[in-house]
Formats: sequence, structure tokens, C-alpha cells
Amino acid sequence: MRSTVIHGARDIRLEDRPDPAIIASTDAVVRTVATCVCGSDLWRYRGIADVPRPTPIGHEYVGVVEAVGGDVTTVKPGDFVVGGFLTSDNTCALCKAGAHANCLNGTGYDGCQAELIRVQNADGTLIATPDEPDETMVPSVLALSDVMATGWHAAVSADVQPGSTVVVVGDGAVGLSGVLAAAQLGAERVIAMSRHADRQRIARDFGASDIVAERGDEGVERVKELTGGVGADAVLECVGTHDSVVQALRSARPGAMVGWVGVPHVTDLPQEHMFWKNVGLRGGPAPVRAYLPDLLDRVWKGHIEPGKVFDLALALDQVAEGYAAMDERRAIKALLRP
Amino acid sequence: MRSTVIHGARDIRLEDRPDPAIIASTDAVVRTVATCVCGSDLWRYRGIADVPRPTPIGHEYVGVVEAVGGDVTTVKPGDFVVGGFLTSDNTCALCKAGAHANCLNGTGYDGCQAELIRVQNADGTLIATPDEPDETMVPSVLALSDVMATGWHAAVSADVQPGSTVVVVGDGAVGLSGVLAAAQLGAERVIAMSRHADRQRIARDFGASDIVAERGDEGVERVKELTGGVGADAVLECVGTHDSVVQALRSARPGAMVGWVGVPHVTDLPQEHMFWKNVGLRGGPAPVRAYLPDLLDRVWKGHIEPGKVFDLALALDQVAEGYAAMDERRAIKALLRP
Repeated sequence: MRSTVIHGARDIRLEDRPDPAIIASTDAVVRTVATCVCGSDLWRYRGIADVPRPTPIGHEYVGVVEAVGGDVTTVKPGDFVVGGFLTSDNTCALCKAGAHANCLNGTGYDGCQAELIRVQNADGTLIATPDEPDETMVPSVLALSDVMATGWHAAVSADVQPGSTVVVVGDGAVGLSGVLAAAQLGAERVIAMSRHADRQRIARDFGASDIVAERGDEGVERVKELTGGVGADAVLECVGTHDSVVQALRSARPGAMVGWVGVPHVTDLPQEHMFWKNVGLRGGPAPVRAYLPDLLDRVWKGHIEPGKVFDLALALDQVAEGYAAMDERRAIKALLRP
Repeated sequence: MRSTVIHGARDIRLEDRPDPAIIASTDAVVRTVATCVCGSDLWRYRGIADVPRPTPIGHEYVGVVEAVGGDVTTVKPGDFVVGGFLTSDNTCALCKAGAHANCLNGTGYDGCQAELIRVQNADGTLIATPDEPDETMVPSVLALSDVMATGWHAAVSADVQPGSTVVVVGDGAVGLSGVLAAAQLGAERVIAMSRHADRQRIARDFGASDIVAERGDEGVERVKELTGGVGADAVLECVGTHDSVVQALRSARPGAMVGWVGVPHVTDLPQEHMFWKNVGLRGGPAPVRAYLPDLLDRVWKGHIEPGKVFDLALALDQVAEGYAAMDERRAIKALLRP
């Protein structure tokens, strides 16, 4: 089967690799119908994170089950399935507490930008869609594998409530998904911080009531103007840089929560914007499986269309172009069809 | 009137100062019935925080209203009252959001370890007790002015829920109050980290189910043993040193919240115990007025007796001994009677 392998900075290749097989009785093998490139894949693509040896890459997928191990009971060959970017057993103490991303028996993947993948912990990771989704719905189901669930996690971590005023820092696929999540959770006002017209358009479409293009002190000023001088009730940090974390904390009103989901590259957390202002910070990798049944239901009923974050669709053999387009910001997020 | 003035490290004097008067129409003047020394007062007493000039000190009190300004409507002369360690108007956008410690019009005090004090924002700060409390109840009402409300804030910030397993780091008056708060909020298990027999006794009395005397790696190990290997659902950080914040974060299970209320003296926040573990951190100065009606009700009905944290009662003219006893850890918390 064909699989994407990263060899080093800006060196992405589609290669022939052995078909994955059932190893544990809790495994499934899934034939991917769609997969995609994640902003976090770009850390290695850009040479910021190391690639010590050629490595299969990708952690988002939807597909059809090909085979299951003897202990798998909730999905069967032929089912159309989606799973999160980490596997989880959905039975351990941490999964029971809703912390599936930190499952005691959780694992990652051996490269999902491929035709076939092995999914460990199949019962605790995959869920089958009610039926085979039609073509137009596939991107939205795929988005649940990571970005939409991650944006949702930001909103949940930030404690977005009906009536909340929310700021979203970051207009990548996760930030846009965060806008959608905040709107779905009943936010009265969603302020998207974005400088790009195309992304602003999607943010509006997802429920943003206001756009703030300014950053830094000016960005904080604009947020204050829009929030009666006090800041937002909830802030979603969807970038992960030091500046964006500071931007998020400073956009919060005293007593507010910041939900952070951007993989942090923060020198040190600015306590001066936290303790004395009673501003909290919570988040991390999203417990996708915890949110998946609800999110799939919202997609299935047509309440949300998170697949709109994919503004580029390519065949899998054009995967290198997908990376290049995202790296050069020609695309928000690239979908790949095996 | 007599008032406590700090002149510098270990230099506490009771001095004659002018009686406070109504200045703004929203002021009250209160004759204190009891006041006390706070752990945070010790920062200056120990010379860690600066004392640039002789300064009246103290921020906890109960007393009887002597006079009110023309716009005060909720308390009147003769009322027995308690107020928080900061004043709040209880009407601004932040008070409406429950963030009274960050009230847009909030103030501090000009020294509450005194016979008379001026309370700004009287309507938004003071509440009158249903009746004059009897002698034995006075310490418990006084405790609501800071430590009990602060322990409560730690528990609320840590999102303690019915059935939660909770760790409390710190066995000072705030930590012990945190134990009581966690138990009141329905925690199934409250693990108090304490090395002192007298404090362990109060912790047990307040609802601690387990005591962990170890600290550092050993303390984390003990907590893990008591929590099925995963850590606590909620952790209350009631000290504020770097080590205690790290202890708190490491005692939390993935997905848990740490409520921090110890004034932080933290070099930098250890992100490695936060993001990847999905452990959140929230807290700051307590919004006392937000909690006061409920807490006073619990004291009045005899459900809680937070005044047990006072293990030393002195006349106001022995205030210097109160500081010394707390500094030398001969007392948990010193109550002063004018």
C-alpha cells in the first residue's frame, strides 16, 4: 500500500510500504477514504522539529473497516468509521473521567496519510457513522478526527457558556473550528482574531460576530472596546506561540478561563496575567473520543459543517503539494484522497 | 483609636491613630469585634516584602456598624457585619460575573487590626449577620473575611464536584479551610498534605479522609497510591511557593484542575505538568462577597465551624505576640480582640 513518509525538512514522499495487519485482538485495519495534513505536521516539515529517520506521518482519517481483531465488538468490516488522532481504550480511569487523550493504554498511529492504517484500541477509538456519508459530508466527518474536536476542546476548556462573550486567538483550521464550537455552545458573541480575508469569511460563516485584525496591545484594546472595557468571558488559544498565549490571557476578563490547544512553544507562562486577574488556563490535546458521538450527531443532522476548513483537496499522490500549500499559507488545510 | 502599624521587619506596634470617618457617601465605619493576622501579613513581617514607611496593617474583621454614608442602604448602625479582605461594589460588570476580587471600583483597607475601620463600598462589601452571633460563633464569622472564603475559592477554582477525589497542598489556615470547603462541596475523598499533628487533627475534623506527610516525589507517589495510580480529580494549592505549585500540579490526574490561592512566589510555571497532561490552573484572590451569603448561612446553621483554625486568641494590644507566634509556627492563626 502507499503511505506518506517524511524524510526530513520539506522532504515528503509517497512510498510503498507493507500493508498493516491485525496484531492485537483489539486492533482494526481501516482503508482510508480521506485523510489530511495537520498544522502540527508542519513542525517537522519546516525543520523546527527533528526527523531522525524516515517516518510515516499523519494522524487524521476516515475510512472503511477492512478487518478487526477477535475482541473488537463495536465496529465490523464494511463500517464507515472515524477516530481521533490518538487511540483510547474508553474504559480506563482516565477515559471514564473524559480524559481520553491521556488514556492509560492510549497510542498514536504509524502514519495515517496512507491507504491503509492499523487502529489500536479499535472499540475505544473508532465510531461508525449511521450510514455511509455522501461525498459532501466526508470532509466534515474527517474534521472530527482532530481540528473540530480540538476547537471544541478549546471551547470546553475555556468554559464557554450560553451567553458568553468569547475571543478566539488563531484563524487556522483549529481556530476556525473553535469559532464554530463557541457558537454551538451558545456564545452570544464570538470575536475572531484574524488578518486574512478568506479566513475571516469562514469565521463569519461559523458564527463569528466580530473580527479583530489587530494584534498585541492594539488587539487587546480592540477586544476591550468590544467587551465593555473588561475583556472576554472565555478565550480560545489556538496557535501555541508565546505571543498568542499572552494575547489570549490579556484578552480575558478577570475570572475568565483561557482554553489552550495550540501545541505550546511558550518560553514561560506570564503569571502576571493570571493569578491577580483570576484568569485560568486549561487545555491540552483533545479527548476526541469524549466529544465524537455528540459532534458526529451534529454533523449528521447538518447543524455544523466543519469540513469547510478544507480549502484544498488533492489526490494522495499529491501529498507533498498539500504540505507545501499549507506551509506557504496558500491553503488553510489540505484534504487527501487515497 | 488604637491601630496596628508595621514599621519594618518584626516591628509591629499598636499606636494611637485618628478615628476613621465617613468620607464617601458609600462608606461605613465599623467598630471591630474581632480581627486577626493573615499568613500574607507575614511577608512584610519577615522582611521578604518591603515596608517603605510605617503602614497600618490587617484586612480581616467582624464588627458592629458605627456610622454609614448617605448612600448606604443595606447595613445600618448597630448591625453586626462581616466583609471580605477587599471591598467591592457588587454592581460592576466584574462583580456581576462573580469576580468581586477584581471589582472595577474595589479597594483595600487602611489597616483592619484596629478598633475602628473605614469600609468603602459598604453595600457591596458588608453583609449583616441575621442576629448578633454568640461568642463561640464569632471566630467562624471572622474566618469568612478571608481564609474560609479563600479555601472555598480554591475548591471552586479546582472544580470540586460531588464524588471528587481532592488533594489539598498546604496545612495553614487556608489549606485547612480548603479541606472543609472540599468536603462541603461533596468530595468523596479529601487527601490533606500535612506534616504537623495539630494541623492533621483539624484537617481530619474538617473532613480529610487521608493524610499524606511526604512531599516532593514521595508525596506524589503517596497520592498516586491513594488514587488508583492516576492522581486527584481536583487539587487545591494553598501555599504559593514554587515547590508547592509543582506539588499540586503533579498531584493532579490528567484532565484535572488545580485551584491556586496561595500568593504565588513561583519562578516559572512548569508547563510540562500542564498542557500534555491536560491539567488546568485557575485561581487568585478570592471573590469573598460572591461566597459570603452562602458561607454565612452554613456557619449560622452550624454546618461548618471554620473558626477552628484560630488556635490562639489575644487582646489587640498583644498583636506583636500574634505575629511572632505565627512566624514561629507556634500558632496556625491568631485572633485579636480589641
